[in-house]
Amino acid sequence: MILCVAGNPAVDKLFEVERLAPGEIHRPLGFIQRPGGKGLNVARAATSLGARASVTGLVGGHSGRWIAAALASEPVEGRFAPSSAETRTCLSVADRETGRLTEFYEAGAPVTHAEWDGLMTVATSLMAGAAWMTVSGSLPAGAPAGGYRELVHAARDAGVPAALDSRGPALAAGLAARPAMVKVNAAEAAELLGAPVGDAATAVAAGRTIRRRIGGDGHAAAITLGERGAVLIDPAGDAHQGSLDVRGAYPVASGDAFLAGLVVALERAEPWPEAMRLALGAAAANAEVPGAGVLDGARAHELAAAAVITAG
Amino acid sequence: MILCVAGNPAVDKLFEVERLAPGEIHRPLGFIQRPGGKGLNVARAATSLGARASVTGLVGGHSGRWIAAALASEPVEGRFAPSSAETRTCLSVADRETGRLTEFYEAGAPVTHAEWDGLMTVATSLMAGAAWMTVSGSLPAGAPAGGYRELVHAARDAGVPAALDSRGPALAAGLAARPAMVKVNAAEAAELLGAPVGDAATAVAAGRTIRRRIGGDGHAAAITLGERGAVLIDPAGDAHQGSLDVRGAYPVASGDAFLAGLVVALERAEPWPEAMRLALGAAAANAEVPGAGVLDGARAHELAAAAVITAG
Repeated sequence: MILCVAGNPAVDKLFEVERLAPGEIHRPLGFIQRPGGKGLNVARAATSLGARASVTGLVGGHSGRWIAAALASEPVEGRFAPSSAETRTCLSVADRETGRLTEFYEAGAPVTHAEWDGLMTVATSLMAGAAWMTVSGSLPAGAPAGGYRELVHAARDAGVPAALDSRGPALAAGLAARPAMVKVNAAEAAELLGAPVGDAATAVAAGRTIRRRIGGDGHAAAITLGERGAVLIDPAGDAHQGSLDVRGAYPVASGDAFLAGLVVALERAEPWPEAMRLALGAAAANAEVPGAGVLDGARAHELAAAAVITAG
Repeated sequence: MILCVAGNPAVDKLFEVERLAPGEIHRPLGFIQRPGGKGLNVARAATSLGARASVTGLVGGHSGRWIAAALASEPVEGRFAPSSAETRTCLSVADRETGRLTEFYEAGAPVTHAEWDGLMTVATSLMAGAAWMTVSGSLPAGAPAGGYRELVHAARDAGVPAALDSRGPALAAGLAARPAMVKVNAAEAAELLGAPVGDAATAVAAGRTIRRRIGGDGHAAAITLGERGAVLIDPAGDAHQGSLDVRGAYPVASGDAFLAGLVVALERAEPWPEAMRLALGAAAANAEVPGAGVLDGARAHELAAAAVITAG
C-alpha cells in the first residue's frame, strides 16, 4: 500500500469559459469539482496504476466533509484527520479559445498544532501497512514549520521510506529529516538551491546536490522538467535521464502522477530506471485526460514502454 | 418585515490578487467568503438600513449548510428550503493593480420541481408577516420556468406587494404575474425590450413600457443606470430621475442595495421619491465598503439626503 499524505487538501474546481476576459463577468460553460490537492492526486494516480493507496491529511468544515464524502465514490481510501479550519478550494479557469489555464490557489484557514498532532497520529497508524509514504504539497497555514520533518522521522521509525514533494520552507524542513527520496520540479529545485535549473545537465547537478543534502548513498532525487522529461539520481548515485515524446492537453498534476509511477513501481520491486519509465508514462497518461491525477492505468503502462531512459 | 427571496443563492467568494494574469498561477493575497446571491444581498442591506428582513431560497449540500450556518452570525433571518443540489459558488477576483473585478458565476446543479414547491411553501408561510416581498436573481437550473410567476401570484394572494429583479426568461415569466414593482438595470431592461437603454430619457421610456406591461396604474418600475443614477416610474405614473454624486470602489450589489432602500422606505410609508432617495443612498453606501450588500445604515441615510431627485 502507498500512504499518500496530502499536506493541504483542497476542493479542486475547474471552470471552462469561452474566453477569460479580466474585468468581465463569466458564466462558466462547464464545471467540474473534485477532491484535490497534490497528495490526493498521487493517491488517485497510484490507484489507477494498480496499487492500493490510502490518503490522509487534515480536512475541516463543510468543504472538508464534501471531500471525505466525494472520495468515498473513488477507489482511493481516505482516512482524514479533522481540523476546525474550513478546507480550501483551488480553482482552475480553462480558456476554450487559448487553451490556457489560469489558477487560483487559496491559502486556506489556519490549522492548530493540536490538529497537526492528530494528523501525525492517523498517518503513523497507516504506516504499518505502507510500502512507501509520499508527502506532497504545501503545509497548511498554522501547521508547525517542521511538520514534514516530523512526518519523515515517523516514517523512518516505522521502517517506511518517505518521498517528499514540496517547496520553499516546508521542503527545506522536510529535507532535514533525510527522506528516502525527494521529487521536485525544476522551479522548486532552483528555489531550493538558489541556482537556475533548466536543462537535463543542470537538473542532474541539482539532483546530485539535493541527494547529498538528504544523505547521499541510499537516497534518491528526481527532478521533473515538464515537456523535457525528468532526471533521477538513484540510491546508488547513478543518474538517469528520461523523456517521452507525448504531449497531452491536461498537464495539471502530471508531477503528482510521476511520483505515483515511481513509488508504485518501487513497491513492485522494479529497478529505479524502470520506476522512472512508469513515472514518465503515468505523467503523460495524466496529461491525456482531464482531471488532476486521473489517468488510464493501461495507457500509462503502454506509454511507459515508449519512454527513453538514458544514463545521465 | 421584508421577505427576500433569493432565487439562486451562492457562496460568494472574493479573492484579491496582485495582478490577474491569464495563464498564470495566483496565490490570493486576501480572501473573503460570505453567503451571497442577490436575494441575500437585499436582505443584508435592508437589515443595515434598519428593517427586519427574512431571506429564503433553496440551498443544498455542504455549501448550502455552510450558507445557513454562516448566516446565523448575521442579523438576517435565514429560512431556507432544502435542495439535494449542491449550492453554487460565485467568485470575484479583485485585481489590486487595476482595481478591476473579474467574476465567475457558477450555474449551480439543477433543483427539482418538488424542491421548488418546497420553497413556495416556505416563502408562502413567511408572507404572513411581510410588508414587501423582493424576488431577486436568476432561477436555479431545474426550477419551473414560471417559478417567479408562481411566487408573485402567491404574494398577491397573501396581500403582499412583490418587487421583482431578474433578467431574461425568468424576468419575463415573473412580469406575466404583474408584480407591484420591477427593478432592473439598463442592460436587463434593454434585453427585455429589445431596445437600447442608456441615458435617463431612454430609461424613462423603458420604465414606462415595463410598467404598462405589469398593469400600469398601481405598479412601479425602477431602472438603475450605474454611476448615472436611476429612474423610477411610480404607481401614479409619475417619472422621477435620481442621482448621487458619490463613487465607491465596491459597486458589486449596489443594485441590490438600491432595491433594499426602496422597499425599506416604502415599508415606512415614505412617498416614492423619498424611497428613491434612500435607494440611491443605500446603493452608494454599499459601494463604499467591501462586501455585497454590506453597508453602514447611518451613512446610507446621510448619502440619501444628498441625492438629487427631479421630475422626469
